[in-house]
Amino acid sequence: MKQTLSSLPPYLKMENGELWLTEDDRDNLKISYRIKEVIFSEQSPFQQVMILDSYDFGRMLVLDGVVQTTSIDGHIYNEMISHVPLQFHRAPKKVLIIGGGDCGAAREVAKYNDIEEIYMVEIDETVVQACKEHLPAVSGNLSDSRVQFIYTDGVAFVKERANTYDVIIIDSSDPIGPAKELFSYEFYQNVHRALKEDGIMVCQSQSPIFHLDVLKQTYTNIQQLFPHAAVYTATVPTYPGGLWSFTIGAKIPLSLPNTWSLPADTKYVNEAILTRCFELPQFMKTVLS
Amino acid sequence: MKQTLSSLPPYLKMENGELWLTEDDRDNLKISYRIKEVIFSEQSPFQQVMILDSYDFGRMLVLDGVVQTTSIDGHIYNEMISHVPLQFHRAPKKVLIIGGGDCGAAREVAKYNDIEEIYMVEIDETVVQACKEHLPAVSGNLSDSRVQFIYTDGVAFVKERANTYDVIIIDSSDPIGPAKELFSYEFYQNVHRALKEDGIMVCQSQSPIFHLDVLKQTYTNIQQLFPHAAVYTATVPTYPGGLWSFTIGAKIPLSLPNTWSLPADTKYVNEAILTRCFELPQFMKTVLS
Repeated sequence: MKQTLSSLPPYLKMENGELWLTEDDRDNLKISYRIKEVIFSEQSPFQQVMILDSYDFGRMLVLDGVVQTTSIDGHIYNEMISHVPLQFHRAPKKVLIIGGGDCGAAREVAKYNDIEEIYMVEIDETVVQACKEHLPAVSGNLSDSRVQFIYTDGVAFVKERANTYDVIIIDSSDPIGPAKELFSYEFYQNVHRALKEDGIMVCQSQSPIFHLDVLKQTYTNIQQLFPHAAVYTATVPTYPGGLWSFTIGAKIPLSLPNTWSLPADTKYVNEAILTRCFELPQFMKTVLS
Repeated sequence: MKQTLSSLPPYLKMENGELWLTEDDRDNLKISYRIKEVIFSEQSPFQQVMILDSYDFGRMLVLDGVVQTTSIDGHIYNEMISHVPLQFHRAPKKVLIIGGGDCGAAREVAKYNDIEEIYMVEIDETVVQACKEHLPAVSGNLSDSRVQFIYTDGVAFVKERANTYDVIIIDSSDPIGPAKELFSYEFYQNVHRALKEDGIMVCQSQSPIFHLDVLKQTYTNIQQLFPHAAVYTATVPTYPGGLWSFTIGAKIPLSLPNTWSLPADTKYVNEAILTRCFELPQFMKTVLS
């Protein structure tokens, strides 16, 4: 559904005949993207969901005016949050994704033929439908019979599961608003319980440049719950600070596989990237030690 | 010297009582930084040189309205462009830096006690003086008797040297305007000649996300001239795309040192980072192979 110009939200502005999206969630830094076209716009029960076509980053998913993922670099984040736990687990059959409405993580998980069940628990169905239809560079128009979509609150969902999943991927948005609980100790306790005895979880743990406190708290929580925990990084160009962190918690030791089983068509990860991603810059090592 | 509000250049704007710098060098992406104070502003023979104090990134060097380096992440770039060639060379005595007006690379080089001579060839003396006095987080108020400042055109300077330096660091700005020649084949030929027979050069080779063409051309040039060439990356949050590339050319094989001799006070690099930085994302490997 196309947005008419008369009903543009405040973060979308027409200036000198050009359409610009200005992210307005930070007090002291504003990033403005020149937009070709509003592809999709709908107010869901949770947020304003937009797919915008931008000049520099292609189509982007924008929630309440904040860019979540783009065609140019969405694969970096999604490959890194998926293939690391899947490679370390070695024989995952049942995978739970919490959040991940852009379908990019589920798309990566579905590349493994041996995985039998993929559950995607996302609170906002509008995001999933918009990305499946209008953001193919990220979602790959995901259509795989092993993927079951469950539109509910991930926090409540995981509370009621025990000893069920091999891998849990927590692909949350920033720890404000609805996603705040996805960073709590109690939530990770429930994730731990929902995993099988050789299970592995991973979550995105924010920018080491701007939110080192969130990363440190997340790592501390996961380290307290899991015998094996580690932080790894990737560079995601459209996320503030570029450098992004992920924290992994495992019931089994995190040793590199003897033989890799990576899908052939990855664009960012390869065996060397998966090996090196745990080597952290000195300032991160200092804070996490 | 403080800038009066009446003489603000177009990229600095007062809005609702707040001062904002908006980088205006890109057509389709604009980044705006909220500014506390204009610390220094002067029109040099080459460009408008400013030191601005920003809310999110501390003091920043801004040339013609474009952020060059900031207090929060300047060290990442400067550590990566300096310590990689210095660690691979093993016994550098005489180092030439071309560009690098923020003095951050010279500061890192000066941390090695065994290095005897450091030549910094920068075209714009105003940049050096401004950074030495007003940007201590990057320049470290550099004051070392081994550092000789030469204010001239680096392209012409290097043309007249042969078999002189152990390491040459090319710390240029973007390949537009005055820095364009610093990306030419002829320039690298002259750099090759200026190096001793076991010499190593490094240059920044732009964003692999937005300027993969520049990186590819630079790597091709250096690979044609040097028997050993390699590309490495770092994440520099305030550079567009976050991911940044450097290209190294060496007359000796680029093998990791058996014993490292890193200064103790680095904030980004450590031995693991120096080892892993050559492992490239799959899309870069594909383009460079």
